[in-house]
Amino acid sequence: MSNLLDNVNSPEDIKSFDVPALEKLTGEIRDLILQVVLKKGGHLSSNLGVVELTIALHYVFDFKKDRLILDVGHQCYAHKILTGRKEEFAALRTKAGIAGFPKREESVYDAADTGHASTSASLACGMLRYGHDGAQIVALIGDGAMTGGLIYEAFNDVKTIGKKFIAVINNNDMSISKNVGSVAEYLRDLDSVRQPFREYGIKYYGSVDGHNIRDLIKAFTYARDCKNSIIINVHTQKGKGYAEAEKFPDKYHSYSPSSSSGGSFSSHMGDKLFELAKKDTRICAITAAMADGTGLEKIRSELPAQFVDVGIAEEHALCMASGMAMSGAKPYFAVYSSFLQRAYDQVIHDMCLNDCAITLCVDRAGLVTGDGETHQGVYDISFLRGVKNMTILAPKDFSELEEMLEWSKDFKHPLAIRYPKYTPVHNYSDNSSFKPGKWEWLTSGDKDMVVLACGAVMNDFAMTVHDEGGTFDVVNARSIKPMDEELLKQIAGKKIITLEDGVLPGGFGSGVAEFYVTNGLPVPRMIIKAVDPEKLTHAALNELMQMSGFTKESLLADVESLKK
Amino acid sequence: MSNLLDNVNSPEDIKSFDVPALEKLTGEIRDLILQVVLKKGGHLSSNLGVVELTIALHYVFDFKKDRLILDVGHQCYAHKILTGRKEEFAALRTKAGIAGFPKREESVYDAADTGHASTSASLACGMLRYGHDGAQIVALIGDGAMTGGLIYEAFNDVKTIGKKFIAVINNNDMSISKNVGSVAEYLRDLDSVRQPFREYGIKYYGSVDGHNIRDLIKAFTYARDCKNSIIINVHTQKGKGYAEAEKFPDKYHSYSPSSSSGGSFSSHMGDKLFELAKKDTRICAITAAMADGTGLEKIRSELPAQFVDVGIAEEHALCMASGMAMSGAKPYFAVYSSFLQRAYDQVIHDMCLNDCAITLCVDRAGLVTGDGETHQGVYDISFLRGVKNMTILAPKDFSELEEMLEWSKDFKHPLAIRYPKYTPVHNYSDNSSFKPGKWEWLTSGDKDMVVLACGAVMNDFAMTVHDEGGTFDVVNARSIKPMDEELLKQIAGKKIITLEDGVLPGGFGSGVAEFYVTNGLPVPRMIIKAVDPEKLTHAALNELMQMSGFTKESLLADVESLKK
Repeated sequence: MSNLLDNVNSPEDIKSFDVPALEKLTGEIRDLILQVVLKKGGHLSSNLGVVELTIALHYVFDFKKDRLILDVGHQCYAHKILTGRKEEFAALRTKAGIAGFPKREESVYDAADTGHASTSASLACGMLRYGHDGAQIVALIGDGAMTGGLIYEAFNDVKTIGKKFIAVINNNDMSISKNVGSVAEYLRDLDSVRQPFREYGIKYYGSVDGHNIRDLIKAFTYARDCKNSIIINVHTQKGKGYAEAEKFPDKYHSYSPSSSSGGSFSSHMGDKLFELAKKDTRICAITAAMADGTGLEKIRSELPAQFVDVGIAEEHALCMASGMAMSGAKPYFAVYSSFLQRAYDQVIHDMCLNDCAITLCVDRAGLVTGDGETHQGVYDISFLRGVKNMTILAPKDFSELEEMLEWSKDFKHPLAIRYPKYTPVHNYSDNSSFKPGKWEWLTSGDKDMVVLACGAVMNDFAMTVHDEGGTFDVVNARSIKPMDEELLKQIAGKKIITLEDGVLPGGFGSGVAEFYVTNGLPVPRMIIKAVDPEKLTHAALNELMQMSGFTKESLLADVESLKK
Repeated sequence: MSNLLDNVNSPEDIKSFDVPALEKLTGEIRDLILQVVLKKGGHLSSNLGVVELTIALHYVFDFKKDRLILDVGHQCYAHKILTGRKEEFAALRTKAGIAGFPKREESVYDAADTGHASTSASLACGMLRYGHDGAQIVALIGDGAMTGGLIYEAFNDVKTIGKKFIAVINNNDMSISKNVGSVAEYLRDLDSVRQPFREYGIKYYGSVDGHNIRDLIKAFTYARDCKNSIIINVHTQKGKGYAEAEKFPDKYHSYSPSSSSGGSFSSHMGDKLFELAKKDTRICAITAAMADGTGLEKIRSELPAQFVDVGIAEEHALCMASGMAMSGAKPYFAVYSSFLQRAYDQVIHDMCLNDCAITLCVDRAGLVTGDGETHQGVYDISFLRGVKNMTILAPKDFSELEEMLEWSKDFKHPLAIRYPKYTPVHNYSDNSSFKPGKWEWLTSGDKDMVVLACGAVMNDFAMTVHDEGGTFDVVNARSIKPMDEELLKQIAGKKIITLEDGVLPGGFGSGVAEFYVTNGLPVPRMIIKAVDPEKLTHAALNELMQMSGFTKESLLADVESLKK
């Protein structure tokens, strides 16, 4: 029997398929996903879980005019394969290929660029309010995203809009980890789920077996033809069709074929925090559905009383942490940089204005391989640096992170420690001990040119170029706020290059310039090397570094230009 | 009959009162609130509505050890009067007196500094998780705050915590304006409200007449003595006891005795937007429960199809606006600067990464009289300036705001226009026409010293000092991003003072320094005058200006110091 997928170049091509053919197609698409992701890496469990669901949606709707909004977006692989991108799928998540998330510039079938959870119903509300006459607006929402409050803000709006909205709940009892809280519980219970949605004026249909094409087509056809706003509750299995992923869906949530042998900042953070927490019951590790990604597995399993997973609910995580801190606890909220953006008012209003002794463990800070621009952690320095009471640190390597964590346990104010997904390569032999507001000379200090490097990736980059003959000194600028004012005064007569894996406006280099200005000192000749957000895309770290000019050639050219 | 309040210096003093005495006390407290607020300004309707409720809470609980968390916090007046602050209450919201919101530094009875909506249940969850053995944790939540998604993130967590949580819903069918959406509807319906909370494992009690002391005491005693988490649904009337405020509760939400005769940026924004919207059906005005505060009353009443109020749900407002913009609409989201913080990830992830043609009308940007630090709009320049695709403008006066709005209707990218609560005093006679990336000389341009002023307050300040003999030129730096690069190059040999009503790190002055650095130019001798967040408190605008050094003396001293 020939390969059906060979002749599927758009969703139009599957409209004539019968159910057995559609079922065969699910197998072919799963094979393609497995083949590419096991080789290249990517989101596996979620994509294997929605193959039938995606095929049935495209079979019933016409998403050239109808709109399919993928909440979070990482479950888009079958959608991309069906909508004319099966060839490019081989180069998934690489600079040469397509993104691992929906991209409007890739296809008319991608309704919105997404990457963060719980936004789809709001986007749908907007699309209902304007344009799209006669079109069907469908939001595909994982049950994990149902723990994010934004979803309820949108549901609250649906009845007011008075137009038909279709929500498909992809109910697999997981966010990235096991789903938590009352929402997870009531989504398991049909009567309960029916009732809350009735309050929002939304009809309920379900539950549907998410791996039965016939049932799915029936459900979606019903949804398409009914007049009311409707929610279809579809039960799927994460990792479906790949035994390992079915068994360990969180392990295969985001799969990487080459696991680094040198360890990660996440795991060192988790291990050190576990060690501290064992000795100090004030310490509590908090995550928003990211215990595995942030290294908290051990605390979760061995110190469950000092571990909280609130689900995909960053605002609550940090506001709740503020309540804990006001009561004398010492909370550590481990969160990816790009997801911390979702709790920004909690940073300002709850954590910092109340001067709470919370530590933000800002993971995936800086450039992030593969996931693309929604996941780049490039804004945190800019948006944290101005906030009252905030201290910001960035370790150069694992042992410095551990030192900072050790120090943090007695610190009584808001703190952010930012670190990347990266394994340091340079061997920093002669560590001076960490103090906030104190930087560290990594080289002799006798040159006329000083590179101030912020964080592990930038210190490694600077030291690599230095060791290959760069005629400059390197300073590990591990305390972003406060800065090392003494050192900055000391080098005021030299030339300075600052390096940071964040955006330039308001970033670290900007802060260095501010220091000289606010102290009435002439600003030394300096170059700020930072990330250009226009150039952020889905690519590997080294490619992203290159795109933003973090190359040996570029750094040496900067050194030369300052010499002139 | 003697004045009961005279002898009430702490909640202990009312424990022996009988119901008639408590009822008499409500009248005395209402009189005091009315007397002070009608003279000094402040939040009136909400405070008049909760007098009985607050008295009954303090009668039943002991909030020295129990915790009372006031959601939003603006309903704290009776609470402050009862908890030893009745003398200071006369100087409410002024530098000399107490804050209009809870402040932990004022009293042990203030559990958390609050100011923004929907945080109380999360703070309560944190307090339940740590400390407070045997204490009762009570969150007082307005039904308006129930439209914010954060509340549901917290409710989702309550059952997991497994400790007793008490939520008192102050149900007055209003946020600041009339409450909107399905939540408002189901809170009106007893059976509906009972059901959603059952899903969260929370017992329901109600509804209770919020102006009947006896019923309130009965309800709170029941809540205090029961074992389960419980929600008490209390119906109150905003403005209760003051006929005008009962009739026009939104008008008296935030009352100001001296209304400015010169108009406001809000009303000019609303009028201009109304004019544009009449001619262009793509335009839609969006608010998160702030139609009156942001000047949108006219659009609301006369162009209802081009007006959306989503309730207190800033994230949804902006994410929904992104969905509209993706569909070809031209949304304007009018929002206070400090509340825009609540939609920061929607600014980045939905609006800007998708390059949506949304305009943020950032009201109350800069220093804000009276409300205190939670309402200061001092972070927006810093947190918006780095975001990809963003353009930021700040008009010097009403006509420039109108010009910017006129121009914005054909702009196809993310835009923020920031303006303060302020009536310009300087008469800018000779306006050059507005262009993004172009600033405006307000003076001759022949001096060696240039003041770059950002926004209406700062331009007025600079021009006032200039007209009183300051020897410097003044530039209206109305385009914060992009900056006027040509002008900056032109003045590269001069001395520069930048003025902005935002924090220094990452702000406008910082951006000026960045410009010179990134263009390889020597940074001119310059002084950045910005807001010091350590000094922000509840005070009048002129006092806040003084605290941050925006005085004639200070500016002239800066001019002198740069001359040296």
